[in-house]
Amino acid sequence: MSYVPAADDPAADSAVAGRASGPTATRPTAAVLVTGSELLTGLVRDANGPYLARELGALGFEVSELMLVGDRPEDLRSALEFVAGNGAELVITSGGLGPTADDLTAEVVAGFCGVGSRLDPGVQETINAKTARWASRGGFDGPALEAATRKQSMVPEGASVLEPVGTAPGLVLRGTSGPLVVVLPGPPRELQGMWPSALTSPPMAALLAGVQHAEPRLLRFFGLPESEIAATLREIETSGGFPELARVEVTTCLRRSELEVDLHPLPGAEKTADALAEEIITRHRRNLVSADGTTTDELLARVLGEHGLTVATGESCTGGLLAGRLVDRPGSSSYVSGGVVAYSNEAKTSLLGVPAELIGTHGAVSPEVARALADGARERFGTDIGIGITGVAGPDGGTEAKPVGYVCICVTTREGGVLARDRQLPGGRSDVRERSVDMGMHLLLRAAGGLPRG
Amino acid sequence: MSYVPAADDPAADSAVAGRASGPTATRPTAAVLVTGSELLTGLVRDANGPYLARELGALGFEVSELMLVGDRPEDLRSALEFVAGNGAELVITSGGLGPTADDLTAEVVAGFCGVGSRLDPGVQETINAKTARWASRGGFDGPALEAATRKQSMVPEGASVLEPVGTAPGLVLRGTSGPLVVVLPGPPRELQGMWPSALTSPPMAALLAGVQHAEPRLLRFFGLPESEIAATLREIETSGGFPELARVEVTTCLRRSELEVDLHPLPGAEKTADALAEEIITRHRRNLVSADGTTTDELLARVLGEHGLTVATGESCTGGLLAGRLVDRPGSSSYVSGGVVAYSNEAKTSLLGVPAELIGTHGAVSPEVARALADGARERFGTDIGIGITGVAGPDGGTEAKPVGYVCICVTTREGGVLARDRQLPGGRSDVRERSVDMGMHLLLRAAGGLPRG
Repeated sequence: MSYVPAADDPAADSAVAGRASGPTATRPTAAVLVTGSELLTGLVRDANGPYLARELGALGFEVSELMLVGDRPEDLRSALEFVAGNGAELVITSGGLGPTADDLTAEVVAGFCGVGSRLDPGVQETINAKTARWASRGGFDGPALEAATRKQSMVPEGASVLEPVGTAPGLVLRGTSGPLVVVLPGPPRELQGMWPSALTSPPMAALLAGVQHAEPRLLRFFGLPESEIAATLREIETSGGFPELARVEVTTCLRRSELEVDLHPLPGAEKTADALAEEIITRHRRNLVSADGTTTDELLARVLGEHGLTVATGESCTGGLLAGRLVDRPGSSSYVSGGVVAYSNEAKTSLLGVPAELIGTHGAVSPEVARALADGARERFGTDIGIGITGVAGPDGGTEAKPVGYVCICVTTREGGVLARDRQLPGGRSDVRERSVDMGMHLLLRAAGGLPRG
Repeated sequence: MSYVPAADDPAADSAVAGRASGPTATRPTAAVLVTGSELLTGLVRDANGPYLARELGALGFEVSELMLVGDRPEDLRSALEFVAGNGAELVITSGGLGPTADDLTAEVVAGFCGVGSRLDPGVQETINAKTARWASRGGFDGPALEAATRKQSMVPEGASVLEPVGTAPGLVLRGTSGPLVVVLPGPPRELQGMWPSALTSPPMAALLAGVQHAEPRLLRFFGLPESEIAATLREIETSGGFPELARVEVTTCLRRSELEVDLHPLPGAEKTADALAEEIITRHRRNLVSADGTTTDELLARVLGEHGLTVATGESCTGGLLAGRLVDRPGSSSYVSGGVVAYSNEAKTSLLGVPAELIGTHGAVSPEVARALADGARERFGTDIGIGITGVAGPDGGTEAKPVGYVCICVTTREGGVLARDRQLPGGRSDVRERSVDMGMHLLLRAAGGLPRG
């Protein structure tokens, strides 16, 4: 077992956390090279690296490097040589396939593989067909477009061509030695759209046929600190009951207030991963959200749909974010009726019927007002379930009794059910609001009966 | 001038976009090495790379590589050698400073710089003081903690030590040759907390003294396609009126439906960047949001505050996201009263007084209903301004006349002002909803008089 703690956890690097040895490198390695000078300014976040890393991991590769390099050909060339020298069997590049003279990825990769390039008339025809419509509409001049298309139709000798999603074709090629190189366009929509055809291209299919793949397990917990999983893993390791433990990589990740525990077996260690998953579940069943990776949002949509239940929200500090999260899913109109963002006390009273005296007696941030917001939303919208959230999001407005981060959430049902929590949440204004929404979603799921039986 | 087109723009890699030559490398180069096997699974997004890239760019460096590598010492060592070989004058590492045996960054960097390590009693004392409280509370055993502290107190010979933010101290060191290396912890909170002291450490301060810094300009436009900026830059370049143009890097970035145009002058080319900025503004004044980087959200908060105006929302397809965006800013309670998420037709009528006949005649997604939602929100909450949004977010519910992506937005004011838009927005469900919110924020800003005069 190798254990990588949750990176979102502020204590991950400093606290005494359990980590076993590094990954046992028996999987073939792959490298990802993302080109784009804009990514090196920090203004734009790279989406392609994480996407490709996840995909490659699922296919059975170990990603050894993820490199962001500038748009200069020498940067890409030296990066290719670096990852090849480190033993990568597969290299994926993204970007630099555009029509202008400095989009040089295809040429650089051809040079790296030791082959020349030639004009591919079939590719030229495909791009012409793609650009014809917007070229006439946009009033582009003929020669410039022709030159651009010609440039994008140059294909390295021996390369497999991947059908363009935009106008840039992808490439799969290998030199006489060295890694297989898959060349993909930079825009995430195009890259992700082209990925399936990259996998079925003959040289990639041949490589994949030799890669052993083992299904990972993804467990999801709510309210469980990462240190608890670390302690559990240490105990399991010490107990010696799992002889093949070294062949399971365990990664934890805190996302939307839930701890995702990813068990990634090396080929042949699937049963050990399953047994380890069962052991972790047994020890932390009270916090389990799902044993198959299903998210809280998916589970909530499912349980509301199955029971024909409807929901309405009454939000103060979260200001509409909980409603926004609920209607994020397609088809949510069948179970979400709507909500009220009652930021001011007057709005709480006039729109959701929260008695002004209740606010006066307990304060706008109180379990009592959270419950009245839930009841008010449920009654105004005529739904089965109502949820109310009120809290001190900060940075101002905190008191000794109710400091910044203090949040009250309540779910009430038509049948008189009440599920309430109040918590002191850590972090800044947006952290407090996001964690409140996470907690609200979890409480709704619990109230709707969508959690596994403890 | 070197030009990097907007990475979010799906056409950026495929369309005929203007791009001049690569960056003129007269700035000193820096590289960022982020360690962490979890980052190579794609499950966790790296936050340190973009943060450091932005900081280094602002200091006057050109970031040549941003590399994510695994936790194995040989990965870090080969990455250090790679970026040093490429000529980096400064290398920042993050991660691998924890207390366990496989947190090896300090040792690897010492080896790379050709120095040994020794126990630093001052550092040991600092860490002891930091861990004493939680160690006693958490029930950690003495010897394990002592070993962990001892490990974190090993300092490479000649290194400057940076005070820990968590328990891991940072390091600044240089070998007899090669780049200056700054070693920082992995948790973003610790890394960012330590950054200021890294900058003032004697070796870093000495390096920075030799780096020329030029203030960048950031322009922000709404509703301007990236291709227009590309065309403008081509024209300006052809006109020959800007002799020092090659010394300004222009990067565009589409974020929240706004085009950010970043003009980054090399030292000495500040006036050219200013003149170029003025020329771009003159040509696209109608779409200008701000000439100093101020965001729509900041401008809206400012203009509402200055004029003492209040806002309420009536949302359908955006489901609370616009209200959530408005209350995202601290102090927003002084100008946001609240909102109603009226997802069902009944809710539109009962909570916001949208006449059922109006919905029957024009349909729930119509300019008429958007206006009634705005009026209803404004009246129910008693605010100066109301905004209504209704649209077909998809994936279902589209018709030929009102396809998926069709959105109607209306802002009305107490004085009878009406500002309305209906648009066919591209993308999937979440794109449509996010772009609707962007458009709503922009329309609110326009209605409140917060845009520059055209």
